[in-house]
Amino acid sequence: MEIGISIEAENKVGVLHKLTGILSELGGNITYTQQFIKDDGKIGFIYMEVEGIKNIDELKKRIENCEYVKNFEIHSSLKKIYGKRVIIIGGGAQVAEVARGAISEADRHNIRGERISVDTLPIVGEENLYEAVKAVATLPRVGILVLAGSLMGGKITEAVKELKEKTNIPVISLKMFGSVPKVADLVVGDPLQAGVLAVMAIAETAKFDINRVKGRVL
Amino acid sequence: MEIGISIEAENKVGVLHKLTGILSELGGNITYTQQFIKDDGKIGFIYMEVEGIKNIDELKKRIENCEYVKNFEIHSSLKKIYGKRVIIIGGGAQVAEVARGAISEADRHNIRGERISVDTLPIVGEENLYEAVKAVATLPRVGILVLAGSLMGGKITEAVKELKEKTNIPVISLKMFGSVPKVADLVVGDPLQAGVLAVMAIAETAKFDINRVKGRVL
Repeated sequence: MEIGISIEAENKVGVLHKLTGILSELGGNITYTQQFIKDDGKIGFIYMEVEGIKNIDELKKRIENCEYVKNFEIHSSLKKIYGKRVIIIGGGAQVAEVARGAISEADRHNIRGERISVDTLPIVGEENLYEAVKAVATLPRVGILVLAGSLMGGKITEAVKELKEKTNIPVISLKMFGSVPKVADLVVGDPLQAGVLAVMAIAETAKFDINRVKGRVL
Repeated sequence: MEIGISIEAENKVGVLHKLTGILSELGGNITYTQQFIKDDGKIGFIYMEVEGIKNIDELKKRIENCEYVKNFEIHSSLKKIYGKRVIIIGGGAQVAEVARGAISEADRHNIRGERISVDTLPIVGEENLYEAVKAVATLPRVGILVLAGSLMGGKITEAVKELKEKTNIPVISLKMFGSVPKVADLVVGDPLQAGVLAVMAIAETAKFDINRVKGRVL
């Protein structure tokens, strides 16, 4: 059984280490962790999903007695709430149109029980885009990446190549100038269509297989 | 100095515990953690941001010698890449329009050096929306929440109240039926306008202060 644990603790060195110690002592394998410091800098928030812990009462007791923990909650795993993510990065005008297609299509699949969220970052500049594409590999639950702009190449193309080496995240590019379309799995002219196809590619209730159209230009 | 560490390790009990141990021994305070198991179930990916570590060479050596670690990279902190998040939850049609306003507005601020991303979840049903709103408190870097639908109340309203008690995340609601508009900080009729205002409320380059219009209906 997988459980979710939400913990608020003081922002001190070693708190996460203590908590992970409790979990591994009780045989828990941590499948997902999200931890960040709240705005005031004093409180750290930790959310973890853990499988394999049998003695929940013992877990509760140990967390309760853990120094610096202010409050905590054990609940069912929240992982499935935000589901698979479509990430759209690029210029505002194009990102908005791709998102419109993706959100409409995600709605249609989510109604049938899927969980697909659509996350965007409108941003310009080779260096910024390079960093953003590279960082996609560090984000959880990414299903597909759409690059939406008018001109992308150079270091951005390098980041796409690196992403494709490190992960199996497919990349859709709009038709645009620069070398990014050459390294994308699929190139689509209409941004709305690109958004719809991105969702179809990761939806289980859709029949579209991006591997069967690899390298195509639509 | 804050550093970013990306680690790939075998999916074994106790790996995160060992790594956090190395960090706290070297005086590092973990300000951000993201950890998840990759699709194949064999490899865990860990990304951490850490401040206060002076001896980077020692850190490298210790991580290198850590059991189960397959490869790792120490780099500049990636936290600022995706920046503050606008979260939009609700029905597909409205979510898409709010997103359009928010993405266009975010683009205008990001060009001036900010980092605002716009993340959406098109979803229906009281129970689903209740879970999604509750889970907003567990997401990092959330700046503001927009609820975009035609009818929201009951448990969803409870989740909004709980979110407002636990966090200082402002909530914008579209004009809609149900009790959610009653507990929102601001109610906006036009979805495009709601998206633009959501970004203005969290942008540092904008002059809009949501606290000065609290409880207003636009």
